[in-house]
Amino acid sequence: MEGEQVKVLKYWASPFSLRVQIALDLKGIPYEYVEEDLLNNKSQLLLQSNPVHKTVPVLIHNSKNICESLIVLEYIDETWEGRGVSLLLKSPHQRALARFWAAFIDDKLGHSISGMYRCLEKELRKKATNETMNNIALLEEAFGTAFNGLKGNPFFGGECIGYLDIVLGGLVVWIQVVEAITGVTLIDPETTPLLHAWLHRFCRVDSVKKSLPQFEKLLTYGYLVQKKFPMLTYE
Amino acid sequence: MEGEQVKVLKYWASPFSLRVQIALDLKGIPYEYVEEDLLNNKSQLLLQSNPVHKTVPVLIHNSKNICESLIVLEYIDETWEGRGVSLLLKSPHQRALARFWAAFIDDKLGHSISGMYRCLEKELRKKATNETMNNIALLEEAFGTAFNGLKGNPFFGGECIGYLDIVLGGLVVWIQVVEAITGVTLIDPETTPLLHAWLHRFCRVDSVKKSLPQFEKLLTYGYLVQKKFPMLTYE
Repeated sequence: MEGEQVKVLKYWASPFSLRVQIALDLKGIPYEYVEEDLLNNKSQLLLQSNPVHKTVPVLIHNSKNICESLIVLEYIDETWEGRGVSLLLKSPHQRALARFWAAFIDDKLGHSISGMYRCLEKELRKKATNETMNNIALLEEAFGTAFNGLKGNPFFGGECIGYLDIVLGGLVVWIQVVEAITGVTLIDPETTPLLHAWLHRFCRVDSVKKSLPQFEKLLTYGYLVQKKFPMLTYE
Repeated sequence: MEGEQVKVLKYWASPFSLRVQIALDLKGIPYEYVEEDLLNNKSQLLLQSNPVHKTVPVLIHNSKNICESLIVLEYIDETWEGRGVSLLLKSPHQRALARFWAAFIDDKLGHSISGMYRCLEKELRKKATNETMNNIALLEEAFGTAFNGLKGNPFFGGECIGYLDIVLGGLVVWIQVVEAITGVTLIDPETTPLLHAWLHRFCRVDSVKKSLPQFEKLLTYGYLVQKKFPMLTYE
């Protein structure tokens, strides 16, 4: 670690850069962070270090740039393998399961949640809401079946939070914000008891608490996103 | 390996199941395959083993179901770690690069190529074509910069094909088919010399050749997809 440089280009409201912060904090890797002005003025450093997607997070480790949050999590786990907890479990099947649901969260759940509050047309918002309810139900079911009720553990990672906890956890305050904007309850003790209990355990973890965005601030930002970036289509 | 059961649910025209076949053949893992009737009659086995996405490929290893081609490739690499070549290189940075471009190929390139021939409106087809040209140019540039001209190696995997070769390679015949349908040249010796040379090397590899779909058959299928699954929007 001596002489290593670890820098994270981040944005306070990004669920994706939140993942990287939580993972580094959990592993106890010291890092410097650079807050990007994502909406108005992206830095030259951001444009140079992530020329393809031009977005956060970017992990700059010595002179290497690592982009895309799921890929950064794997990089952190592999680079600092012996340090702190492992993010991914050892079993190839457990790793595949965690990666499967992580991809599901990004490709399906994240997309449908965005549609719920950003689609201009009522019919599209309704479609996105139905899909979100279905996606949440699939996730709740996976808790019980694929993950076998977490086998009595508090987290997907076992005793401690791991890769999938961090991936889903990046979204928790956003889920609460979208619930507030739309008036639709997504996670509650009756219909999604496993997700609900997990969410509350996750938010109480020390290395998580200090990085979660503040709800009121994110709510204001959610209304801004809704206005500035409406979705015209939804598929 | 003794007593292991490895089964792949696949579809002959799927670039995603092609990846899994190539990886297993490369590693020398014996497997049984089940050809799915993806368009008309999905099997109960497929619906049960991939209830979330209901599509191929699924790797069934003993009683475990692994879905999503990129995740299956990692599973194969981790499960049969000592067997044959490694799909992913050892260095965390090289692994991150391979995963980054794999995600780019699936999220950006695959999507824009689909739009090129499946969008109903001319304006949308044009937009998708421009994006594809741009995506191909980014990939060509990455060959030279991020991958440093493959450092004199024939493949991303080094002397032998690896993870990223297989991910991109799953698409090669599809790229030729979309070129034929649209009349737009995507890969040629002048504008994309590195990709062009790589593509020809890739198609000559023994464990690849035997699995690639036949061009004329895939072209006929491409016209069918265009007719049956037109894209009404493109973003």
